[in-house]
Amino acid sequence: MIIVPLGVASATPTATRHLSSVALWREGDIHLFDCGENAQMRMLQAGLKRSKIENIFISHFDVDHYSGLIGLLSTLQLQRRDKPLHIAGPKGIKKFVDWNLKFANVDLNFDIRYTEVDEGFESERVVDEDEYYVEARPLNHTKFCIGYRFQEKDKPGKVDAEKAEKMGITEDAQFKALKAGEDVEVEDGTVVKSYEIVGHPRPGDSFAYITDTKYCPNSVKLAMNTNILYHEATFSESLADKAAETGHSTSIDAARVANEAQTKLLVISHFSARYTNPFVLLREARAKFFPAWLATELRPIYTDPAQEKGIVKQKVYIKEIDESKSQGSRSGGRGRGSDDNKKRFRKRRSSSSGSSSSRGRSSDRPRRPRRDDNQERRKRRSDSNSSGRDSNKDYNNSGSSRPPKHITPRTPFDDFDRF
Amino acid sequence: MIIVPLGVASATPTATRHLSSVALWREGDIHLFDCGENAQMRMLQAGLKRSKIENIFISHFDVDHYSGLIGLLSTLQLQRRDKPLHIAGPKGIKKFVDWNLKFANVDLNFDIRYTEVDEGFESERVVDEDEYYVEARPLNHTKFCIGYRFQEKDKPGKVDAEKAEKMGITEDAQFKALKAGEDVEVEDGTVVKSYEIVGHPRPGDSFAYITDTKYCPNSVKLAMNTNILYHEATFSESLADKAAETGHSTSIDAARVANEAQTKLLVISHFSARYTNPFVLLREARAKFFPAWLATELRPIYTDPAQEKGIVKQKVYIKEIDESKSQGSRSGGRGRGSDDNKKRFRKRRSSSSGSSSSRGRSSDRPRRPRRDDNQERRKRRSDSNSSGRDSNKDYNNSGSSRPPKHITPRTPFDDFDRF
Repeated sequence: MIIVPLGVASATPTATRHLSSVALWREGDIHLFDCGENAQMRMLQAGLKRSKIENIFISHFDVDHYSGLIGLLSTLQLQRRDKPLHIAGPKGIKKFVDWNLKFANVDLNFDIRYTEVDEGFESERVVDEDEYYVEARPLNHTKFCIGYRFQEKDKPGKVDAEKAEKMGITEDAQFKALKAGEDVEVEDGTVVKSYEIVGHPRPGDSFAYITDTKYCPNSVKLAMNTNILYHEATFSESLADKAAETGHSTSIDAARVANEAQTKLLVISHFSARYTNPFVLLREARAKFFPAWLATELRPIYTDPAQEKGIVKQKVYIKEIDESKSQGSRSGGRGRGSDDNKKRFRKRRSSSSGSSSSRGRSSDRPRRPRRDDNQERRKRRSDSNSSGRDSNKDYNNSGSSRPPKHITPRTPFDDFDRF
Repeated sequence: MIIVPLGVASATPTATRHLSSVALWREGDIHLFDCGENAQMRMLQAGLKRSKIENIFISHFDVDHYSGLIGLLSTLQLQRRDKPLHIAGPKGIKKFVDWNLKFANVDLNFDIRYTEVDEGFESERVVDEDEYYVEARPLNHTKFCIGYRFQEKDKPGKVDAEKAEKMGITEDAQFKALKAGEDVEVEDGTVVKSYEIVGHPRPGDSFAYITDTKYCPNSVKLAMNTNILYHEATFSESLADKAAETGHSTSIDAARVANEAQTKLLVISHFSARYTNPFVLLREARAKFFPAWLATELRPIYTDPAQEKGIVKQKVYIKEIDESKSQGSRSGGRGRGSDDNKKRFRKRRSSSSGSSSSRGRSSDRPRRPRRDDNQERRKRRSDSNSSGRDSNKDYNNSGSSRPPKHITPRTPFDDFDRF
């Protein structure tokens, strides 16, 4: 499962932050949570195929959370989409889409299935597939607002084939039975217990999207034991009363939910435009909950390291949009990038002592995404690179003379790559 | 008058092109032509104050031409705008805005004045101020579509005060009369003719916005003798039939309008997503009409050289959005940027021989905007550059081994700075 924040602004965009939208990539399908203005373009820039969208979940009817929906739909129409689309949201979403499409005189050639939840509902599965379901619960905002939890269903435990054969299991039927948890009697009459052969069921991946709400119990219920909690943190603690008044969360509230829900990673988003540097928010959240991270637009968050080879390929890096024009050699950072990272990684590992659980979990992984990132970067770099030769030269220099360069923002907070 | 293209894509955005929208800056006021998705954010990035918007003109009801409107309005609302706003467009624009604001439950605390034109109208002044008016005419698209012409009213001719006094004109009343074109009789009985004192009226600046239409006479009428004709060129001539079928123009059509209307500068825009490099369109247009230029997002087009000092300052460069995150020292690249520019500039000057008129006009100017650009670029480059030392090295290499670097796309077509 890969989470790609498409917009992290609140209410009104800043020059650098787009309006709320998050894409969840899973097994080639894309599930969109909220659809702020220009979400369709951000998907393009993130390298996410809009044709792969399966579900769109709208949290509530503040303009900044759905203003990109009609544009996206008409683009899907232009792309000649024919497979149906599912849109879930508060009651009225259908009316909104229908009215606006009618106004623009667009006659979709694909079906839209709507799931509308009405005010005062307790909780509801708006999607229930074989492999995953999406649960919705009401939040506590100035207007009716919904939080979502995307939950993969548990996969059955692994079967120990060798042991099974030793114990005389041969037919598929028997394996099936064992998988289903039943015990099987083999020829010689001995009974093979399911748990002897079948391992623990593997828990499914999970993601909670909670935005535009004060702290409320439902947030915790939605986020309970998730791998990723994507929570709004519009204000810092200093503006707690403003948050209360406008029905938003402070970074502290977000951390509180994360703590009570025992989530594995907290990602805060939906930053008020007044914070040119949202790290102030992260600092507060980190003080209360670890690990926490900032949602960075177009920067994917991987929950399953097996996928960290990067199925999500970013086609256009905002940077490149400009750089494609200037063909200067971008070699410098290369070696720098990688070896500096290793360095920093070691530093981080050694320095890291407390909270061993999460560290234990990831101890064997972290390098992978990092490497992978580098490859990405190298590609980018070599793209904008005029001659391989001098780039190599550069690369050699870099190792020796210069101080390590930072390619992505580096701060004491950046342990992003662990996840 | 300054024209800032905010989006130059057609139908669906590409990774680098936003949906149609153009801002016209005049005397501190901003007039928006079409309002594609994310126009509000592009304005921010272009350094255009959204609070300064006086008029919004919608050409027609294809989603890509108005999908940013509601978002913009709700942002104005959040900015606590109180001065009224004027929106002109095809009949139904009021219904659209009202319905969507009602749906989002937004109660604007500023008034919107609507001018709705209905199908089958001949031509209409949708705005008529003391200093300028905006004329609308129907175009020829698959659905009802309107083209606009923004026309400054002529300023009265200059009064030759000396001559006037020689001829015995003393009182203000007399000057007023003369300015108004009346003749005045002075004490000694001689009649002073107005034309003797008052010079030619000075023609006002003009801009025509013509998008989503086949070639049609109304386009020419709107564009007649404009300083800038902003015309769509969705397709190249090779796709003329597709253009006809979808009710769009080819670059040739755009040039044709420019020729028949005797406009001073043709700017083509609204490029189909299939053209990753719109210069192919420009080449075609240039072959038929000169000077023509491509609309480049966030790149201002000045009609009055006196304003080329750049009242419109671009706050955020797309590149910086990425780089603001990487904290590198500010030094490198600089030299490169500038001197390479000088080089290139010299080259261009010398190579330029024909069409002396326009060159004469601008001979003293072009450096100004270019310098301006350079400073900006320097900033950008130095951002991207983390250590002064190596960047200088880099620069030396580049000077010797490599050909001068291009910072903006440079082609024989690029004589943008003349205007």
